[in-house]
Amino acid sequence: MFFPRRQRKGVTHMVYVAILGFGTVGSGVAKVMEKNAATIQQRAKEVIEVKYILDIRDFPDSPYAEKFVKDFSIIENDPSVQVVVETIGGATIAYDFTKRALLAGKSVVTSNKELVAEHGAELLHMARDLNLNYLFEASVGGGIPIIRPISQCLAANELDEVCGILNGTTNYILSSMIKGGLSFDAALEEARAKGYAEANPSADIDGHDACRKICILGSLAFGRHIYPRQVPTEGISGVTLSDAACADAAGYTVKLLGRAKRMPDGRVCAFVGPHLVEKGTPLAGVEDVFNGIMVRGDVIGDVMFYGRGAGQMPTASAVVADVIDAAKHAHARKYLYWEEGGDIVAPPECMHSAWYVRAQCDEQSVENAFGRVCYIKNEDAKTNELAFLTCVLGGAEFERAKNSLSGVRCAMRVL
Amino acid sequence: MFFPRRQRKGVTHMVYVAILGFGTVGSGVAKVMEKNAATIQQRAKEVIEVKYILDIRDFPDSPYAEKFVKDFSIIENDPSVQVVVETIGGATIAYDFTKRALLAGKSVVTSNKELVAEHGAELLHMARDLNLNYLFEASVGGGIPIIRPISQCLAANELDEVCGILNGTTNYILSSMIKGGLSFDAALEEARAKGYAEANPSADIDGHDACRKICILGSLAFGRHIYPRQVPTEGISGVTLSDAACADAAGYTVKLLGRAKRMPDGRVCAFVGPHLVEKGTPLAGVEDVFNGIMVRGDVIGDVMFYGRGAGQMPTASAVVADVIDAAKHAHARKYLYWEEGGDIVAPPECMHSAWYVRAQCDEQSVENAFGRVCYIKNEDAKTNELAFLTCVLGGAEFERAKNSLSGVRCAMRVL
Repeated sequence: MFFPRRQRKGVTHMVYVAILGFGTVGSGVAKVMEKNAATIQQRAKEVIEVKYILDIRDFPDSPYAEKFVKDFSIIENDPSVQVVVETIGGATIAYDFTKRALLAGKSVVTSNKELVAEHGAELLHMARDLNLNYLFEASVGGGIPIIRPISQCLAANELDEVCGILNGTTNYILSSMIKGGLSFDAALEEARAKGYAEANPSADIDGHDACRKICILGSLAFGRHIYPRQVPTEGISGVTLSDAACADAAGYTVKLLGRAKRMPDGRVCAFVGPHLVEKGTPLAGVEDVFNGIMVRGDVIGDVMFYGRGAGQMPTASAVVADVIDAAKHAHARKYLYWEEGGDIVAPPECMHSAWYVRAQCDEQSVENAFGRVCYIKNEDAKTNELAFLTCVLGGAEFERAKNSLSGVRCAMRVL
Repeated sequence: MFFPRRQRKGVTHMVYVAILGFGTVGSGVAKVMEKNAATIQQRAKEVIEVKYILDIRDFPDSPYAEKFVKDFSIIENDPSVQVVVETIGGATIAYDFTKRALLAGKSVVTSNKELVAEHGAELLHMARDLNLNYLFEASVGGGIPIIRPISQCLAANELDEVCGILNGTTNYILSSMIKGGLSFDAALEEARAKGYAEANPSADIDGHDACRKICILGSLAFGRHIYPRQVPTEGISGVTLSDAACADAAGYTVKLLGRAKRMPDGRVCAFVGPHLVEKGTPLAGVEDVFNGIMVRGDVIGDVMFYGRGAGQMPTASAVVADVIDAAKHAHARKYLYWEEGGDIVAPPECMHSAWYVRAQCDEQSVENAFGRVCYIKNEDAKTNELAFLTCVLGGAEFERAKNSLSGVRCAMRVL
C-alpha cells in the first residue's frame, strides 16, 4: 500500500520538489535550498525538501547522491512531488517533461528562457486548465525580480514599452570596448577568460538570448505571445571602436537593447539591436555584466530593475523564490498568463526613431539622402568617413534614405 | 431586507472598494480605477468598483459626487465593501479607521508610510489574525515595486542590507546643487516652484520621510519592526556647495541615504543621513526626483529598483495594484508580515565606514586626530579649510577622532 511521504507522522506540511538537470542552475537550486532552508521554511510556512534530482550523469560524490534518478517516470508517478524544477534547458526534452509534469498534477518552475519563449502560451494555458502553476521568474534577468513585478505590481497600468539590457555577456563586451578601448575581438576574449562568455558565444553576441527574453517580457506585458521568429534580431559584432568613440563624442553610449513597444494600432513592435543610449540616463549606467530592464506604464511612468542578469546563484535565487510561491499556492496563480499570439507583432519599421549612421561618403550625398543631419566630430575618424545623427524617421523612410546612400558602415537606432 | 450588491443578477464577481480621504493620492486612485477599468478587470478577474469615498469636505462637482460619505460607519457597516483604501495619512484617524475596517472584515490598502512605520507590526498582526490583508506597496518608493519584490521575489535570500535614495525632494535639491551649482536655499526654492517641495519642507529635508521608509523596508527585510524613534536621522540642510565640490573632485556625489544593515550579531543597524556615493555606481546615477533602492541578498547579490518615488499617479499605480491583489486574494497574504521589534536595533556606531570630513584646521591636527587620511584637492576651498577621506573606522573610533579635532564643518559617511 502506498503512503505519500507528506503524511508521515509529525509533519503537517511537507512539500517535495524534484530538480530536472543538475547543471549550473540545477545544482545552484539544490545549494540554495539547503543553505537557506530555515529562511525558506519560515517564508513558505512549509518544509520544502528536494526529493529527486534527475540527470543522465552520475554524481557519486555529491552530497545529494541518494536523490539522483535517471528515469523521469519515477518523478512523474510519485504523487508526493508537488513541484518540478526544470533546469534542463532547450525546447525538446524540457518541453516533453514539463508537459508530463503538469499532466501528472505537479507545478513547474523553470529558468529555461528558450522553452518559455517558444511554448510559453501553450504551457501557461495547460497549467491554468489543470489549476497548476508554471513559473519562470528566472528566465529573464537572472535573479532580478521582473516577471512578478510586471504582472502584479504594475497591474494597474497599461504598459507602453519594455526595453532592456537583457544580456550580460554583450553588455560586458560593450563596456570593455567603450571604457577600456578594447576591440570587439579582444573584449570577447576577455569575457571568455572571465567566464562571462561561452566557448561558442553566438547565442549571446548575435542577440538570440536577448531575443528570447524580450519575447517573454513582451508577451507578459502585452498579453499575447511574441515568438522569437517574429522578432528581428541584430547582435553586437558589427559595432566597432569607431562607433563607440562617435557615440561617446555625441554624448551617448552603445547598448544592446531588446525592445517591445505598443503601437497606436494596438500591435506590438519588437526587436533586438544595438542602440545609442544617452549618457546620464539609467540604462546608460548599466555596466559590465549587469542587466537593466525599463518598463513604461501609463500610470507609473518609467521604472527600472537592475542587477546581475545571469550566474548560478542569482538565477537559483529566482528559481527558489518561485518554488516557495508554488509551494504556498498549490493552485494556479491567476496573474501569470498570456494568450496565443496571432497577428499581434508589427514589423520594426513601425517604430519611428532617430538613427546614428557612419558612412564612407561626403556631406552632399548624406544631405541628398537624409536632408538635415547632425554631424559628430570624431578626431580619430578615417578619411572620408562621416558619422551623423538623423532626425526622427519612420522605419521605411529610414531604409529608403539608407539605401540611397552608398558606403554605409554602421547604422543604429538612438533610444 | 438587505441584499449585498455583489449578488445582483448577472454579476458573478464584484468587489466593492471604499476610499478614505480624497486628497492627492485618494483622487488619483479613483482616477486610475476608472481610466484603466478594463485592464484592471482583466487582471483581477473581478469587477472592482469604488462604492464610497470618505472625506470631510464636499465635492459637489466631482464625477464621483454621489459616492461621497462623511460617516465612516456607513462603510464599516456595509458588508459588500471588501477593500478599504486608506489615503488619509498620519497616524491618528487613519490608525483608528484601519483597525475598525479590519475588525469589520475588510482588507486595507494604504500609501500611509507614517502609519505603517509607527504601527505596522500591530496592524499586520491584526490582519493576519482576522485572515485579511494589510497591503502598503505605495508607502515606499511611490509606484516602484519594492515591497512585493523584497517579500516574494527575494524570498530565497538572507538579506544583508537595504539602502536607498528614498526621498525625491531631497534628491532633487542635491542634484540641483551638484549639477546646477545652486546653493541649498536656491535649490529648495526651485524645488518649491516646481511643486516638488511642500511649503513646510521639514519632513523631507530633515530626513523624516526617508526615516519612515527605511523603517518599513528594514522591518520587511529583517522580519522585526524598526521604529522611527530608533533610527538616527540627519537631513541635507548641512550639505554645502563646498561639500558637493569636494565630493565631485574625489569622484563621488552626495546622496541622502536610508540604510538598514544586518550586523554580525543579528541586530540591525539603521539610520538616515547624507553620504558620499561613488560616481558610476547605480545609486549615484539616480538623479532629480527619482528614487533608487538597492537590496543586497546572500544569493542574489545587489539588485536595484528605480523610478519616480512620489507623485499622484505613480503612488496611485501602486495602491491600485494592491487593491487588485486584495480583490483576488480575499484571505491573508502569507508573505507580508513582521514581528514586534524588541531589541533588534543596533546603534549606528556599530557600522564601520570611511568618512568624508571638511574642517577648518591644519594637516597636523588632522593627522593627530585621524592618522593617515586622503586629502581632497579643491581649488575653491576657503583658506585653512581641509577636506579629506578617512580610512574605514568603527563608529566610536570616528566620534572620538572627530571630537578631538576642532573646526569640523561637515562629516558624512562614504558608502
